[in-house]
Amino acid sequence: MSYVLEDSPALLLVDIQEGLSLHQDYYGGTRNNPDAEANAGKLLDHWRAQGWPIFHIQHCSTENSSPLRPGQPLHNFQEVVKPIGGEPIVQKSVNSGFIGTDLEKQLRGADITQVVVAGLTTDHCVSTTTRMAANLGFDTLLVHDATATYSKEGHNGETYPAQLVHDTAIASLKDEFATVVSVEEILTVEPVEK
Amino acid sequence: MSYVLEDSPALLLVDIQEGLSLHQDYYGGTRNNPDAEANAGKLLDHWRAQGWPIFHIQHCSTENSSPLRPGQPLHNFQEVVKPIGGEPIVQKSVNSGFIGTDLEKQLRGADITQVVVAGLTTDHCVSTTTRMAANLGFDTLLVHDATATYSKEGHNGETYPAQLVHDTAIASLKDEFATVVSVEEILTVEPVEK
Repeated sequence: MSYVLEDSPALLLVDIQEGLSLHQDYYGGTRNNPDAEANAGKLLDHWRAQGWPIFHIQHCSTENSSPLRPGQPLHNFQEVVKPIGGEPIVQKSVNSGFIGTDLEKQLRGADITQVVVAGLTTDHCVSTTTRMAANLGFDTLLVHDATATYSKEGHNGETYPAQLVHDTAIASLKDEFATVVSVEEILTVEPVEK
Repeated sequence: MSYVLEDSPALLLVDIQEGLSLHQDYYGGTRNNPDAEANAGKLLDHWRAQGWPIFHIQHCSTENSSPLRPGQPLHNFQEVVKPIGGEPIVQKSVNSGFIGTDLEKQLRGADITQVVVAGLTTDHCVSTTTRMAANLGFDTLLVHDATATYSKEGHNGETYPAQLVHDTAIASLKDEFATVVSVEEILTVEPVEK
């Protein structure tokens, strides 16, 4: 695998909110990769240490019963990735971080051409945000071990385990939309000047 | 499964071009559902008979080696879904039918609120177009047996067969982004007034 990490790529942390860890019943399945949040926290620490741009994307569900509805206690960001200082928070009400938000405008305004995506869940909001980032022309990296998802039931009635949903979702994103990397790879690669 | 088919939903036929059937080697894998194109043709015949709106989405690759690059013989629509008369063709150069095109504007201009998606490939352009349609607020139906895809290699080196990639991609879209239906269901359901 080869890729170039630019100097000052943007980190997009997608929906790492308490409801997506602490209210698994709502999502109707079992989850994979319990380390996703801690790994996203490692990315965040690294980005802060480097002084690179960070965008905290927060899902604001319009569903009455959703734990991610604003005002619900589990709507908050998880402790390990809580925004500090003036780090921008991008609130959205659909899966894509780019629809109904000014995320694209903020990225272009800051002359950002490369984004690194992590968060929850792999095949819903992370996949949709990754696809749109790539289709909008951003060089897009996806950090596979800083994402996680839930098992899913297919239209054929079959249940697909969370790890399989995660792995196939990433296989569909790989190369077509994003360069797929691990946290360790990101933390150790030497960035280059744009 | 329950859903309402509106009177005059739009059919979005995604990338049913010769290159995606006749140049499988380029896509580096094996394909599932050889009936996808014929099934999409049945949808198209039905839409024409009903006089409902149809949008032919055509991928115009900017990759030199792609069979879907304009000017290449396999860039053409497959015979079974060839546009006729003034049926609109929406040309795109990325996965989403909504990025770099006026598809959203055309749908809103025609007061269309429901879209039915079929085409190639399930987990790339069909999935991305379905996700964006839903996130832009269109009531979105996905016709599972009028789509198909290729096997994929994961970041872990594992190969996922085309049918599994197809099924898990649809499981991730189901309910979150789209109501998943079969061609037969669409052809036999009674539409209701908006």
